[in-house]
Amino acid sequence: MPPGEFELIERYFRAPAEALRRERGDVALGIGDDAALLQVPPGMQLVAAVDTLVEGRHFPTGTSPESLGHRALAVNLSDLAAMGAEPAWFLLSLTMPDVRADFLEGLARGLLSLAQEHRIALVGGDTTAGPLSVSVQVLGLVEPGTALRRSTAKSGDLLFVSGTPGDAAAGLEMEMGIPQASQVVAAQQQYLRRRFLYPTPRLALGQALRGLASACIDVSDGLAADAGKLAQASGCGARIEVERLPVSAALQAQLGSSALRAALAGGDDYELCFTVAASRADEIPARLINVKCPVTCIGVLEESAGVRVCKNGVPIGLDLRGYDHFNPPR
Amino acid sequence: MPPGEFELIERYFRAPAEALRRERGDVALGIGDDAALLQVPPGMQLVAAVDTLVEGRHFPTGTSPESLGHRALAVNLSDLAAMGAEPAWFLLSLTMPDVRADFLEGLARGLLSLAQEHRIALVGGDTTAGPLSVSVQVLGLVEPGTALRRSTAKSGDLLFVSGTPGDAAAGLEMEMGIPQASQVVAAQQQYLRRRFLYPTPRLALGQALRGLASACIDVSDGLAADAGKLAQASGCGARIEVERLPVSAALQAQLGSSALRAALAGGDDYELCFTVAASRADEIPARLINVKCPVTCIGVLEESAGVRVCKNGVPIGLDLRGYDHFNPPR
Repeated sequence: MPPGEFELIERYFRAPAEALRRERGDVALGIGDDAALLQVPPGMQLVAAVDTLVEGRHFPTGTSPESLGHRALAVNLSDLAAMGAEPAWFLLSLTMPDVRADFLEGLARGLLSLAQEHRIALVGGDTTAGPLSVSVQVLGLVEPGTALRRSTAKSGDLLFVSGTPGDAAAGLEMEMGIPQASQVVAAQQQYLRRRFLYPTPRLALGQALRGLASACIDVSDGLAADAGKLAQASGCGARIEVERLPVSAALQAQLGSSALRAALAGGDDYELCFTVAASRADEIPARLINVKCPVTCIGVLEESAGVRVCKNGVPIGLDLRGYDHFNPPR
Repeated sequence: MPPGEFELIERYFRAPAEALRRERGDVALGIGDDAALLQVPPGMQLVAAVDTLVEGRHFPTGTSPESLGHRALAVNLSDLAAMGAEPAWFLLSLTMPDVRADFLEGLARGLLSLAQEHRIALVGGDTTAGPLSVSVQVLGLVEPGTALRRSTAKSGDLLFVSGTPGDAAAGLEMEMGIPQASQVVAAQQQYLRRRFLYPTPRLALGQALRGLASACIDVSDGLAADAGKLAQASGCGARIEVERLPVSAALQAQLGSSALRAALAGGDDYELCFTVAASRADEIPARLINVKCPVTCIGVLEESAGVRVCKNGVPIGLDLRGYDHFNPPR
């Protein structure tokens, strides 16, 4: 990479990263050597995840660099949230067709302001010329034996979701310019767009659920699909009651009768889907008293494999395709 | 990702990864959840690096998937080698235009046989459709205070390189079909190609140099450039004596009078370039008695910034461009 490009990356990433590194005090060596040196606190387990955002696959061409930076880190923090872990450090692998100051400035702003919010330090990475994609590797910490998993739920456990799923899918439709017969007002449109562009990793919720939730997964591919993965990993099935689904007023206004389908099948929400033993459900309010996002019971795990979506207690057929905007059904 | 594709990835990656995971005994949770859970041994420092290989940038279109898998892990292990660290775990982020069984089988074979050789476990990752690129995030361990760095050399320290740099650049020329006026025999051609396709991360060497080398870097961008980075990070300059450069017989046969330029400017060698205080140079042979790769003293660090390439003690002008095959000089 020519010297001028190196200096741009240096300016937008290294100096702000240095401030966060100092603040944490557990980064013995950050950006600039062959690898980072990190102090894992004694007795803590390390939690590691990676997620890559590829242009035209995870975000439309023309997405603002600030949103891209935010999302690249947020989707990874969401993986840590689903484990109940505390984020500590991350690395960034950036592939871009050319080096533009305004792009890098926006990307760094989106990425590092979310990092600042969660006090997580950028400790390394690499930059390459090529088709635009952003890969983040996140490292977190959790006390041994307390991490939430997908595979530990039991039949009879109640099924919950945080926030209002479907909003991000509606926001993405707007970003992609898909026309809508819409009753939505400007503030609601703005809200839906932001749910796609700036998802909120539910870190505080995940941490609060340790020792209470019997299993947890983050909702990236759609609520029904991800609830199904949790159920399958736990050797059960899931029953979702559509009457219970939390649907935002904005989503309702935007999509009308399609809102339920978006809530079940829309991706990119980065909410948490989790289970709690029915006998312990009354502990939830006290546990979540300091967690700012709502959680809703949407169903139950059952012995029989698969996901059943029910209305008035009766399974309904609902075409759950159609919200993978980058892979429309053929 | 459709179920059939998921099963292919499962078959080629997850089952072999599971064997390595069990062998290590420090992976509490591997592939298949939102994140991996890892046991860092008490008192050890964590070492983290990431490197991405992009088609047309780090490898020519048509490179064998086995080589691609090997190189994606090797370039990351080389970063750990340069720190003197011991590799422990890695994550894989794979972006590919379509899912083909023969491609995945080859990629997994190249990646996992190198992983097996170094007893390092694949603990997570993601797969996306998009332009071909392979990103690996590697995690290693080192005793606190013993990691090798770039920035700790002093003027007067002797400068060393492992192996015979330049071979990989000549091998890449062959892979790219660049015609050569060549005296090289088939076995030498094969050797040079393999130095590009299957580089050897110098892990044992890096570990043996802990407590002896004053600084270390891996040679990915060319010996002169990387020696220059080490010198600059340490606040000095470097002097390289061309008579001392270790040039393989194959490189000499292949490139003749251009061999020296390849040794100085060719990339992709993944050798180690390191410094040792002149007063301790006599400790090197005993330290490296069990390390299988040769090391050669090629010069010295000096106070004056920059890299000087000298012949018979006199700096010579040598055009060091021309070995970045993906960015030829204009």
